[in-house]
Amino acid sequence: MTTTQKFTYDDLYSERSEDAPARTVAHAKYDFAVAYPAPESLPMYGLIDALKAKVDSDGEQVAREMAYYPHALGSPELREFTSEKLKADRNIDVDPDGIVLTAGSGEAIALLIQAITNPGDVVLTEQYVYGGTLTQLRKFQADVVGTPIDEQGIIPEELEETIKRLTAEGRKPKWLYTIPENQNPTGSTLPESRRRQILDICHKYSMPIMEDDCYIDLRFDGEVQPSFRALDDSGIVMYVASYSKLIAPGLRMGYFVASPELTQRALSFKHGSGPNQFAAYAITGFLKEGLQKHRETFNPILKEKSASMQKGFADHFAGTGATLSVPQGGCYAWLTLPEGADITAIRDEVFEGGVGYLAGPNFAPDGTGQNMARLCFAFETPEKNYDGMALLAQLFRKHGVM
Amino acid sequence: MTTTQKFTYDDLYSERSEDAPARTVAHAKYDFAVAYPAPESLPMYGLIDALKAKVDSDGEQVAREMAYYPHALGSPELREFTSEKLKADRNIDVDPDGIVLTAGSGEAIALLIQAITNPGDVVLTEQYVYGGTLTQLRKFQADVVGTPIDEQGIIPEELEETIKRLTAEGRKPKWLYTIPENQNPTGSTLPESRRRQILDICHKYSMPIMEDDCYIDLRFDGEVQPSFRALDDSGIVMYVASYSKLIAPGLRMGYFVASPELTQRALSFKHGSGPNQFAAYAITGFLKEGLQKHRETFNPILKEKSASMQKGFADHFAGTGATLSVPQGGCYAWLTLPEGADITAIRDEVFEGGVGYLAGPNFAPDGTGQNMARLCFAFETPEKNYDGMALLAQLFRKHGVM
Repeated sequence: MTTTQKFTYDDLYSERSEDAPARTVAHAKYDFAVAYPAPESLPMYGLIDALKAKVDSDGEQVAREMAYYPHALGSPELREFTSEKLKADRNIDVDPDGIVLTAGSGEAIALLIQAITNPGDVVLTEQYVYGGTLTQLRKFQADVVGTPIDEQGIIPEELEETIKRLTAEGRKPKWLYTIPENQNPTGSTLPESRRRQILDICHKYSMPIMEDDCYIDLRFDGEVQPSFRALDDSGIVMYVASYSKLIAPGLRMGYFVASPELTQRALSFKHGSGPNQFAAYAITGFLKEGLQKHRETFNPILKEKSASMQKGFADHFAGTGATLSVPQGGCYAWLTLPEGADITAIRDEVFEGGVGYLAGPNFAPDGTGQNMARLCFAFETPEKNYDGMALLAQLFRKHGVM
Repeated sequence: MTTTQKFTYDDLYSERSEDAPARTVAHAKYDFAVAYPAPESLPMYGLIDALKAKVDSDGEQVAREMAYYPHALGSPELREFTSEKLKADRNIDVDPDGIVLTAGSGEAIALLIQAITNPGDVVLTEQYVYGGTLTQLRKFQADVVGTPIDEQGIIPEELEETIKRLTAEGRKPKWLYTIPENQNPTGSTLPESRRRQILDICHKYSMPIMEDDCYIDLRFDGEVQPSFRALDDSGIVMYVASYSKLIAPGLRMGYFVASPELTQRALSFKHGSGPNQFAAYAITGFLKEGLQKHRETFNPILKEKSASMQKGFADHFAGTGATLSVPQGGCYAWLTLPEGADITAIRDEVFEGGVGYLAGPNFAPDGTGQNMARLCFAFETPEKNYDGMALLAQLFRKHGVM
């Protein structure tokens, strides 16, 4: 090998480039910082069996499809299945060709953001919002503003006030991002009445809504609410969802539904072809047979895990003024300590002590929420959820925030 | 469902957005327009068996890894295997942590382009270049200029002349993209001596080289040449490759190796997490056992297919002045008719007549090459390759270009 002096790129980097953030891969003993469904319910053999059954029955089709670059929209069969699922679960009418499969919902969100966002555009989100979307919005230089929420999610009156205030400041919001069902990070579900009010407001101000419905399959209490997209098919709603939470994030399979024109714009930002056809066969085959059974397997697990975290909270945080949201689904509960209790500053020490969480500012467009944290109840066992809450209370006391 | 008036995005699209190009999914009877390896050699059962073996032996690890979002760099085990493969096949020394797995090489190329390319930057490519890269370069608003090639690929002296000419015009080229091994679309392989000359030129002008080595495993004649990256570890070479051609495009698994600093910049353009962990298990397990055997299976198939296309050409294009490149690997041969024979304009008619090809301008930064076409010999059977060439000659005569 020729040994040459190190080549430097210092003058060559693009203006848009920056160092990627360092990724923490460490996990605490009680890992409430993760964003993962229950690993014990992951149907690996179900996926493999489905894949094998597909090759057994349609080997020639599979060989041809695998040898082709995937369709830009992704596997036709999985889009067909997704169309049926959207009708059955969400009362959404959309043809398979109106669905775009993506490498996780992250790609879907990125494509749509790029299609309708110029640098400096104001984008509204919940006051505390999924960190992955926040990161992407910032990456594409949106001016992200949170709109007030309560335990039911976005407050419509406050949303309109926020729009009016920003518009008066010359910062008219362009569109709204929301997770209305089992929200990340707070666990809230937005009632139908509020969804209708929010739709009216968004029409009034010509603001599209990006509805991120990634947690729709993860419900163990209460009633699922109609999706924005089911309540309004005018095109104002961009609907995003995923198979990451239903089956496994490692499959990287999400999707979106948007107006045909917007979809064409969004697709122009794709890097290369559609997502993994190999995973698509496995997902399609597995869910065609076993969707309902799979949901019936993991939702009771999530319910038990949530309950044990709630019990741990009730037993060990009583009288401290702390609150923990009570989700009816999803993966997360939202912990709030009294104002002034900074659990963000002590995150590393608490992690060393054995409990991992993501602090409020990770989710806040304005960087507030120092007294808040997202706790994932879906990953650890019920026992560890209970014990972890006990330890968390002990560590908070030790570090003087409680 | 509320029926509302159609919502319009006309005033909302971002300035960077445009309609995605329409995708042709039609296939001619003799499909030489594709870019796919031999479907009959796709090891679907091998992949499934490897996946099952992994779950059998390491089920708990798999469940945890699938439940986590994939590492931004992709599966550690597949990076480990890729590191060993690069050493064995390419004499490239790189740690697993120096490898970034991506959703096909397309994502790798897009990330690297974005890290070092501002709108208006001049990027050099072969005179006829892989259309996917050309599309991406244009998408990121590079000023793409082709540098002259012959049957061995880039001509070093012409490369330096091109750099000098452009620099004198105030358009100093920033970096060079090349497929040195079994090039797409021409099928050429760049000799080692030229690679060394090109490296010297690129150092002289501080121009990084993006080496796209996607066809390295597809060689049935001649000698593999040392990669740019093996000849130079200064960091000037960005190395891109893929498992799409070795196993299947449908797996969406590519990778790149670049200097650590450049890698950090490139990663900042990722949408979401690393690629499909599910496919990674299958690829790793399958290739660990069977890489050599798999290559020994499909390369003779490709050799026979190439030979039958060459024979079809020799028998049916003799005396016409047309030439067909004679590749030693890869998927493509490059057809050139005499100057003035416009086979681009009649592409649709020839397609209707039964033969599909991609015309020269698809690959030319300057849009020339009307008398040229890329023919994929890898997809159809040897018999269809021969018959398709016979029909192609007949159709060219019918349409008056030959």
